Amino acid sequence: MKINLQAIQAFEKRYRTAFINSLTGFKSLNLVGTISESGQENLAVFSQIFHLGAQPPLIGMIVRPHSTARHTLENILETGYYTLNHVTASTYQQAHQTSARYDREQSEFEQAGFQPHYETEFKAPFVAESPVRIGMKLEETTTLAINNTVLVIGSIQLVLIDNEGFIQQDGFIDLEQAGSLTSSGLDSYHTTTRLARLPYAKPKP
Amino acid sequence: MKINLQAIQAFEKRYRTAFINSLTGFKSLNLVGTISESGQENLAVFSQIFHLGAQPPLIGMIVRPHSTARHTLENILETGYYTLNHVTASTYQQAHQTSARYDREQSEFEQAGFQPHYETEFKAPFVAESPVRIGMKLEETTTLAINNTVLVIGSIQLVLIDNEGFIQQDGFIDLEQAGSLTSSGLDSYHTTTRLARLPYAKPKP
Repeated sequence: MKINLQAIQAFEKRYRTAFINSLTGFKSLNLVGTISESGQENLAVFSQIFHLGAQPPLIGMIVRPHSTARHTLENILETGYYTLNHVTASTYQQAHQTSARYDREQSEFEQAGFQPHYETEFKAPFVAESPVRIGMKLEETTTLAINNTVLVIGSIQLVLIDNEGFIQQDGFIDLEQAGSLTSSGLDSYHTTTRLARLPYAKPKP
Repeated sequence: MKINLQAIQAFEKRYRTAFINSLTGFKSLNLVGTISESGQENLAVFSQIFHLGAQPPLIGMIVRPHSTARHTLENILETGYYTLNHVTASTYQQAHQTSARYDREQSEFEQAGFQPHYETEFKAPFVAESPVRIGMKLEETTTLAINNTVLVIGSIQLVLIDNEGFIQQDGFIDLEQAGSLTSSGLDSYHTTTRLARLPYAKPKP
């Protein structure tokens, strides 16, 4: 079936949101951990997260400033630090719960049942229950004029991996073995099954 | 195990690239279809693709200008149009092959064995073999000063879905039923298994 822009614009608002959010494919599911200058912890589930470069090691993230993610952004701007934490089959229901509209003085760690974990000399809280955790330093934020979302660019400072065995000989992290999930749309959570890792592609003779 | 920035920077280059590319989690795997003003078709596999907003319907994409994706970017800038096409278990090996360094006058449709499909009044080629296809119009490109990657923002113009049944009652597209894959790192391809769709989260009383 063919759906053009006029048809999409005529969709009922929630229907359109569900439709458009599913379109891009499976997403990078992470819990973003932050703390305010005054010490209030915050945790929020994000899926608009993407690799931006390996040298320097950078990750991009899209924040909608009027969503529940607003507290996350405020904390990142206040302290300059945040964490990304993978979600597993045993934590995705709690992770989803962090998307509820809590007040800023409520900690989603507490409300959703996660344990904050701190590393020496790293300001933002990690999620103790997560097998792959990344400590991020804010590099820059850019408000995209086209729809007022905020592009947050951070550099990787610290990586915590539960088990050294998740890292293969060539540096590839086996996320499936780590138990990391992927998400689709706004509310669908998935495990994965590897088909293959393929060798570096070369033009065929 | 704990890996800090110094340790990451000391990694051998290819090891670091594999490591950092795996860190963000599972990715949105798409084939990007383009054509040059002179009619040369191009197809390239991308995974740095993300939902940017539903109203207007926008998708973001990161292009490394010195990669094989350069032809894709040149074509997008020339014509203002491109397509995103999901990859399935029966096409991922061909999709991976599009990442080989072909000359601009070689079509990856031909080299990797995909059939271009055109829609009336839409300039860029779709992938006939793909179950979910999106016709995109370029809205803006921004070179990110931090590492010279290019953020390409496009608006959704047209959606082609093989089977109406993939779309659920609330607008959610069941990508698993469509057969869309996800990827991790630079070369790992995965099917998915849904754990659940969860209801809209509310603070618990």
